[in-house]
Amino acid sequence: MTIDVAVFGAGRIGKIHAANLARQPGVRLKYVVDVNRDAARALADLHGAQVADVDGAMGDASVGVTVVCSSTDTHADLIVASAAQKKHVFCEKPVDLTIERARACADAVERAGVVCMIGFQRRFDPTFSALKARVDAGEIGDPEMLIVTSRDPGAPPVEYIKHSGGIFKDMLIHDFDIFRWILDDEADTLHATGSCLSDPAIEEAGDIDSTAVTIRTKRGRLCQINTARRAAYGYDQRFELLGSAGMLQAGNVRPTEVTAYSASAVSSDKPEAFFLERYRAAYAAEIAHFFDAVNNGKPVRTTVADGLKALELAEAATLSWREKRIVKLGENVA
Amino acid sequence: MTIDVAVFGAGRIGKIHAANLARQPGVRLKYVVDVNRDAARALADLHGAQVADVDGAMGDASVGVTVVCSSTDTHADLIVASAAQKKHVFCEKPVDLTIERARACADAVERAGVVCMIGFQRRFDPTFSALKARVDAGEIGDPEMLIVTSRDPGAPPVEYIKHSGGIFKDMLIHDFDIFRWILDDEADTLHATGSCLSDPAIEEAGDIDSTAVTIRTKRGRLCQINTARRAAYGYDQRFELLGSAGMLQAGNVRPTEVTAYSASAVSSDKPEAFFLERYRAAYAAEIAHFFDAVNNGKPVRTTVADGLKALELAEAATLSWREKRIVKLGENVA
Amino acid sequence: MTIDVAVFGAGRIGKIHAANLARQPGVRLKYVVDVNRDAARALADLHGAQVADVDGAMGDASVGVTVVCSSTDTHADLIVASAAQKKHVFCEKPVDLTIERARACADAVERAGVVCMIGFQRRFDPTFSALKARVDAGEIGDPEMLIVTSRDPGAPPVEYIKHSGGIFKDMLIHDFDIFRWILDDEADTLHATGSCLSDPAIEEAGDIDSTAVTIRTKRGRLCQINTARRAAYGYDQRFELLGSAGMLQAGNVRPTEVTAYSASAVSSDKPEAFFLERYRAAYAAEIAHFFDAVNNGKPVRTTVADGLKALELAEAATLSWREKRIVKLGENVA
Amino acid sequence: MTIDVAVFGAGRIGKIHAANLARQPGVRLKYVVDVNRDAARALADLHGAQVADVDGAMGDASVGVTVVCSSTDTHADLIVASAAQKKHVFCEKPVDLTIERARACADAVERAGVVCMIGFQRRFDPTFSALKARVDAGEIGDPEMLIVTSRDPGAPPVEYIKHSGGIFKDMLIHDFDIFRWILDDEADTLHATGSCLSDPAIEEAGDIDSTAVTIRTKRGRLCQINTARRAAYGYDQRFELLGSAGMLQAGNVRPTEVTAYSASAVSSDKPEAFFLERYRAAYAAEIAHFFDAVNNGKPVRTTVADGLKALELAEAATLSWREKRIVKLGENVA
Repeated sequence: MTIDVAVFGAGRIGKIHAANLARQPGVRLKYVVDVNRDAARALADLHGAQVADVDGAMGDASVGVTVVCSSTDTHADLIVASAAQKKHVFCEKPVDLTIERARACADAVERAGVVCMIGFQRRFDPTFSALKARVDAGEIGDPEMLIVTSRDPGAPPVEYIKHSGGIFKDMLIHDFDIFRWILDDEADTLHATGSCLSDPAIEEAGDIDSTAVTIRTKRGRLCQINTARRAAYGYDQRFELLGSAGMLQAGNVRPTEVTAYSASAVSSDKPEAFFLERYRAAYAAEIAHFFDAVNNGKPVRTTVADGLKALELAEAATLSWREKRIVKLGENVA
Repeated sequence: MTIDVAVFGAGRIGKIHAANLARQPGVRLKYVVDVNRDAARALADLHGAQVADVDGAMGDASVGVTVVCSSTDTHADLIVASAAQKKHVFCEKPVDLTIERARACADAVERAGVVCMIGFQRRFDPTFSALKARVDAGEIGDPEMLIVTSRDPGAPPVEYIKHSGGIFKDMLIHDFDIFRWILDDEADTLHATGSCLSDPAIEEAGDIDSTAVTIRTKRGRLCQINTARRAAYGYDQRFELLGSAGMLQAGNVRPTEVTAYSASAVSSDKPEAFFLERYRAAYAAEIAHFFDAVNNGKPVRTTVADGLKALELAEAATLSWREKRIVKLGENVA
Repeated sequence: MTIDVAVFGAGRIGKIHAANLARQPGVRLKYVVDVNRDAARALADLHGAQVADVDGAMGDASVGVTVVCSSTDTHADLIVASAAQKKHVFCEKPVDLTIERARACADAVERAGVVCMIGFQRRFDPTFSALKARVDAGEIGDPEMLIVTSRDPGAPPVEYIKHSGGIFKDMLIHDFDIFRWILDDEADTLHATGSCLSDPAIEEAGDIDSTAVTIRTKRGRLCQINTARRAAYGYDQRFELLGSAGMLQAGNVRPTEVTAYSASAVSSDKPEAFFLERYRAAYAAEIAHFFDAVNNGKPVRTTVADGLKALELAEAATLSWREKRIVKLGENVA
Repeated sequence: MTIDVAVFGAGRIGKIHAANLARQPGVRLKYVVDVNRDAARALADLHGAQVADVDGAMGDASVGVTVVCSSTDTHADLIVASAAQKKHVFCEKPVDLTIERARACADAVERAGVVCMIGFQRRFDPTFSALKARVDAGEIGDPEMLIVTSRDPGAPPVEYIKHSGGIFKDMLIHDFDIFRWILDDEADTLHATGSCLSDPAIEEAGDIDSTAVTIRTKRGRLCQINTARRAAYGYDQRFELLGSAGMLQAGNVRPTEVTAYSASAVSSDKPEAFFLERYRAAYAAEIAHFFDAVNNGKPVRTTVADGLKALELAEAATLSWREKRIVKLGENVA
């Protein structure tokens, strides 16, 4: 039996998901929806699909799954609409920029009983998931301290930043999810600070480009996250977990294993350029995981509740940074 | 316009090529041929192809390309038959175990004017090909010494070894091709020695499992190759090239970038398990390269002449080892 | 001309300094002072020196230099006494556990016009000082974020911890000095949190064993420090500095460069065991630097003012942790 | 009781040995002997020793140990003279450039019953000796293949090369000793080839600058050695040993553990510059080992017999290269 899928959003991440779902056995891309009709057309043609508008795709009862890669402000509506139509939904992060609407999504999904998975693709990265499996197997005893380094090669346009919800919701949302997943624990208190060091225009837009976040969990574990919008050497995605019996590090991935010995140094490749390259395998794995859940009734690894929790941490971090104070999770942060 | 393809051989390498060619735009797998009809059927079904016998596939004028992954003793006949039918042919290494028949293949291909590419997939490995590009760009000046390490995780069954043509033709054929490709030079003299260290049954079969080969090229460059049928730590595929202005190393690829710090050591993953994993990207790239050559009239990177040259080196090495003497290439080694 | 030296403290760090100063040309170890007379005797004998008590050594006008490696509570008195006797003084960190007495030392030293160097040996580590030189040369542009990892192989006895001044003064004092040295900037605000995760006896002693500190500097730069009293894999001393044009990392040092490939992993040595091994070269270099300053009137790299500043950060961190709040440096933290 | 020592040769290696033996407890440098009296004077003054000529130093019965670091052509005479005077002798490699005179040294030493140690310092390198200990402990099972890489940063003056005995005696003598030590086996056959690739003046002097040597041992093990007089990236000293149960690699040592991430690459330090830096710890350890043998009647790790064996391999390699043939050890190679 074939599952028909509608993809919302024909941008770069939509293209990746479309290509990956086209490789799933028993899955057919039926519709591509995008306000940019040319982009929708190009992607639809590539996979033998049709162009549709939202109502057309949502209204087609034969569509069993929606994949939401459109702009952030459309996520919540499309999740709710999918749930209303009893369609399973895969949605890119974040669920929404407000906790209220994210909760509404969670409620809608639960009531409808559909599968809803949020695209925290890092949980499907081969290095990160191997590390997680080894922690779970007890290799380093009890987890104690997590250090997360997350740096982009360069800042997006300021126009994007203005509508991004701020660096904590836009960029650290992934790191907050990594924190919860790896430590298997929840935040008790959070402290965030930051600076704008790369481009004054970011500051003028009310945001920062460099952050330092510290979380203490309910069980007393510690987590430090450092992020930057700009790393001259490329996309830097590492973390390390100290446990009572050892440590595990997740390092960057390199395009090749060439090492060069010159008169000045011994050098190897920079990390993979950006998220499309770094998480190529992760994007493929998360889509396979999603359809496995849809087809076989298995739980998804990254639920809408996870999306909500990450958003709460992003809200708390924004508050901590703005008000220059330590925030206790669970207090009314809004 | 779609190219119809017949694949000969439905074993593990046939499956890989079938999957990769199925991803080429404008390419359709039409036939799978294998003496094992069940294997042929399974692979054909997976890709919506038909099962055929050799004559059926070769006799179908609509088939423009053959992909030969059957047993070594069938390679030459299938190349010659493909050429006779004006079909382009991609053939796994080696062309044949005898120079005479390999030359016949080269002649047939040339007369027919078809594209013939030999599956030296290592030339398409991302690490190896990046290194080659940097050498060609002059990064390390003039190449001087090449050190090749090539070790399998474990020996194949002795029954296989008996019909393999010996370790130099079966295993080092790849390393001889790497030598010619990286140094862009030809052998002048060759010395080979070896031992049987892992399993006496290999020695009883008239073969060895560990070799040390030294080649001096016509331009005075040096190459040392060391190989073993068994490396307890897995598949080891490295080489390094010393040049007048520096050195480039091609290292192993690891499944993940996890590093573990324990009470006893700091450790990382072993290399990728075996050739199917290590050269996954290379297999995909060589098939894409082949169809690019077929479609656009470009030259192939690994010709039947390359296959012949590698075979000559394997013959010379076998002779050097058996007769315990230095062999000059171009002397009548047969 | 020979400089006569009195060493106070014949423990493990006293032995190291004694051996290193014995190698300085023109330097003679004249006295060893320790309440443990046997220890003093053994060290004195090893270097052909005499055993003395504090008054004897301080009262000998021929002694031009004192080296203070006795217990922390004696540091301030010995610095003040040395200054009063116009003796140059090398003193182990910390100057004192209270800012008040540390200031008194700074004053005494300044009035006397003697050289006073504090033993922040990390500034003399070959890796750390090479990194610092490259930052100063502008290799990574403007420094932006510093991440410091500082973990001991195991906690000292609880009895020691009780008199240590707490983890921030005892252990992080070094990291605070690294922060000031590498960023060449001063703290504006500081947040510290922590937990006791290894041994409840440490908590009962009113201390913690794991800390996470974040500092924002006056110029808006960020620093995160993570420390642990116990790392199962040994002594972990790393930091990394992100700058506007790149990043520099200072890694651990390994006893040997052996790499082992086994059936389970590829592994290398753990880091050097503890500070005596890790900072062996640094201890030698700082003593040479000190005598170079004494002999040639050069400034020392680690002044008593540096010791005072590090102590202020340790006080601020203690306060932040205890009162669960962000501390602004320069507010009356006492 | 103090041992008085005479050092012959006040060049760079003489200075190193003098400094190291000055640190041995119970050892006193009494004489420095060098045809260059100024050099002898400077070194003697540095250590409070006297300048002497050969007869003066050899004739002083209070001298119990000689350390020979003078030019190669003086080694044999000084060993024989030391033995005649019942003095223990530490002699730099090689024993001599001819097997005949090296044998005479071995005989003289044996007759006299003195300790004679040859300065194969690599056996005392911390990385190399740790690897050896792990092999001996059975970590990788039975040794099978040894790959030795040995490259100098640049060629010595041609005038030096003319009197060096050729690259095999001058440079590979160390690698031949490593081969025997690590494999704990003797050569059965040897093949050597090479080229002159860096400087035609070396070829005019009858020598080569790049070599590739293969040895098959009596037990069937394989060893490949590659050497070059010039590596643009510095001094390259590595080897790796494949065993039946794994592999051990000995890597280069770096001055610092700084890693730099730039817009173009991730880079670390080049290897230590040359032998004085790379083997600093080894030189100290071999002198300590020698005096431990002298004082405590222990065997030395590198005997004059080892020096003789290494020389035989160098002779065989020279013959193999010159006559373009495989040489069987034990045949009359002279």
